[in-house]
Amino acid sequence: MNPEMKQAYKTAAKFFREYDDFLLLVHEKPDGDALGSVLGAAHLLQQLGKTFTLVNDDPIPDKFMFLPMADQFLLPENVKTRFRSVISFDCGDRKRLGLSGDLIASDAVILNIDHHKTNDFFGTENLVDLDAAATCQIVYKISREMEAELSLDAATCLYTGLVTDTGGFRYSNTSEEVMLIAASLLKLGVQPYNVVDKVMETMTWPQVLLIRSALENLGRSEDGKYAWAVVTRDMIHAAGGCDEDVEGLVNYPRNVEGVEVGILLREAAPGKVKVSFRSKYVVDVGAIALELGGGGHARASGCTVDGTLEEVKERVLARVAQAISEDEAEQA
Amino acid sequence: MNPEMKQAYKTAAKFFREYDDFLLLVHEKPDGDALGSVLGAAHLLQQLGKTFTLVNDDPIPDKFMFLPMADQFLLPENVKTRFRSVISFDCGDRKRLGLSGDLIASDAVILNIDHHKTNDFFGTENLVDLDAAATCQIVYKISREMEAELSLDAATCLYTGLVTDTGGFRYSNTSEEVMLIAASLLKLGVQPYNVVDKVMETMTWPQVLLIRSALENLGRSEDGKYAWAVVTRDMIHAAGGCDEDVEGLVNYPRNVEGVEVGILLREAAPGKVKVSFRSKYVVDVGAIALELGGGGHARASGCTVDGTLEEVKERVLARVAQAISEDEAEQA
Repeated sequence: MNPEMKQAYKTAAKFFREYDDFLLLVHEKPDGDALGSVLGAAHLLQQLGKTFTLVNDDPIPDKFMFLPMADQFLLPENVKTRFRSVISFDCGDRKRLGLSGDLIASDAVILNIDHHKTNDFFGTENLVDLDAAATCQIVYKISREMEAELSLDAATCLYTGLVTDTGGFRYSNTSEEVMLIAASLLKLGVQPYNVVDKVMETMTWPQVLLIRSALENLGRSEDGKYAWAVVTRDMIHAAGGCDEDVEGLVNYPRNVEGVEVGILLREAAPGKVKVSFRSKYVVDVGAIALELGGGGHARASGCTVDGTLEEVKERVLARVAQAISEDEAEQA
Repeated sequence: MNPEMKQAYKTAAKFFREYDDFLLLVHEKPDGDALGSVLGAAHLLQQLGKTFTLVNDDPIPDKFMFLPMADQFLLPENVKTRFRSVISFDCGDRKRLGLSGDLIASDAVILNIDHHKTNDFFGTENLVDLDAAATCQIVYKISREMEAELSLDAATCLYTGLVTDTGGFRYSNTSEEVMLIAASLLKLGVQPYNVVDKVMETMTWPQVLLIRSALENLGRSEDGKYAWAVVTRDMIHAAGGCDEDVEGLVNYPRNVEGVEVGILLREAAPGKVKVSFRSKYVVDVGAIALELGGGGHARASGCTVDGTLEEVKERVLARVAQAISEDEAEQA
């Protein structure tokens, strides 16, 4: 770790110790790492005898309600105070705090703890560690910096963010340090199966029905190098589901043996199609999405394209086929 | 570790060092941990300047062919020698070595390395560590005992067995030690994503078609506490698949929100149905399978029941419903 980053950890630890009556915030539509990191820190602050208020614009998803203190989040409209000590977790900019951000007093000190490349350093103090796979990893390291013992509840929260932000210890951000931290959290008594079961494996019935219908029209190219699934508004409606239930479906075409690019086309609104791309080893799908008005990484990207499902599908598949043949020509 | 186990590790390390011209064996139909452990050890022996022959009755599944040296397995009929130094990995008894076991000379020394409770100590030396989540974990610890540096190839093999035998670091056997070993293998340069992609995520097209057809007839009880999938011979045939492709399908009914018991019914032969059970937290499906002539653990079990699919389904679902209501009565 470079000296600046080391100092940022020290400053964060000091912030935890020095202030009190905290407002603890994460981004809207919180995920496992946002909730795991803020609740892990909340348990840590509780041990230190500090008080805090947890606020988020959105209801906490059911699957995260097993996290200790997940039931203590308030909606911003129910909070009348303005806070002068604020910690933000896993949030790249102040806008993503939503209305909850309006609870920050104008003269507040704000500690911004995050691992996103896009973070705009909106805090008065900023601990933005791009080497961390998860914000939970950063909170764990703050606890080490403070030489504070983590409770089992805190450990369970932090483990959850490690699991979700590494795709269950699968993505390439699964580093030696991630595994060492996971080991020490297990030592504190975390039950790995219980966490993974709740946050990764459980599917709602609408999700099951959507997998079923997406597989019914799963297609793949003649050479087997790309595959796609299509989800219409009618399919989502028939399943009793919502747009979030479609997340993850892109893995089905992606995971087919021999496939380099998996594509999911979802009807977002009449005449608008949300396209998700996943590639395995070669094709830069970030570049393809960018070209189509979206963005993302080389292996995972997305965009929204105007047109009917059939039109967009034809256009997107042709573009992917071209990218694959270009990459093959390059390798040949 | 108790002193006997400590001694068993020392003895194994000595066996690696002392003998040469090894026959290296694993159980028939080898899985990720069998192949990972034997190939991890093979790389270690190669570093020590030893020679060895890798033999198995079955072809190595495609998805494991990325493991360095996986292409060096011979079929027993192609080996004319009898071997006097043998190491068996991940195999509970000599019968499961299949015809490959016939290559063991009558006066051979056999080191039996395994982590299965059912191991019958068929070796002349036996390192059977029931605390290990994977045989790969044991081989890693032998390398520590030998103070041998692992190559990246060896590390990749050992990581593979850790991944497969813990269900991708998900099962309750994912211990602190497993994570510490995973960390040290990552430090050696293992690419976690590449391993997981190959051994856990990739699906063949027949597997995709079988998920599709199993989801088409997925059922669940009125109270949502158990769910089931049915696979007929016709479905397997239509998908161009085989019995192995059905493995893992039981997770779909199991993972439905609210489900305590997931059941997969597969037509094994006319009038014979293979039943797989998975439970989440309460119901002892091992006891149910035992009652039906099978066996297994409290959370994962199986049996083969005589009857048509419809008959067996009716019988099995009634039995599961009974178990759930008994457990509920007990908890009330």
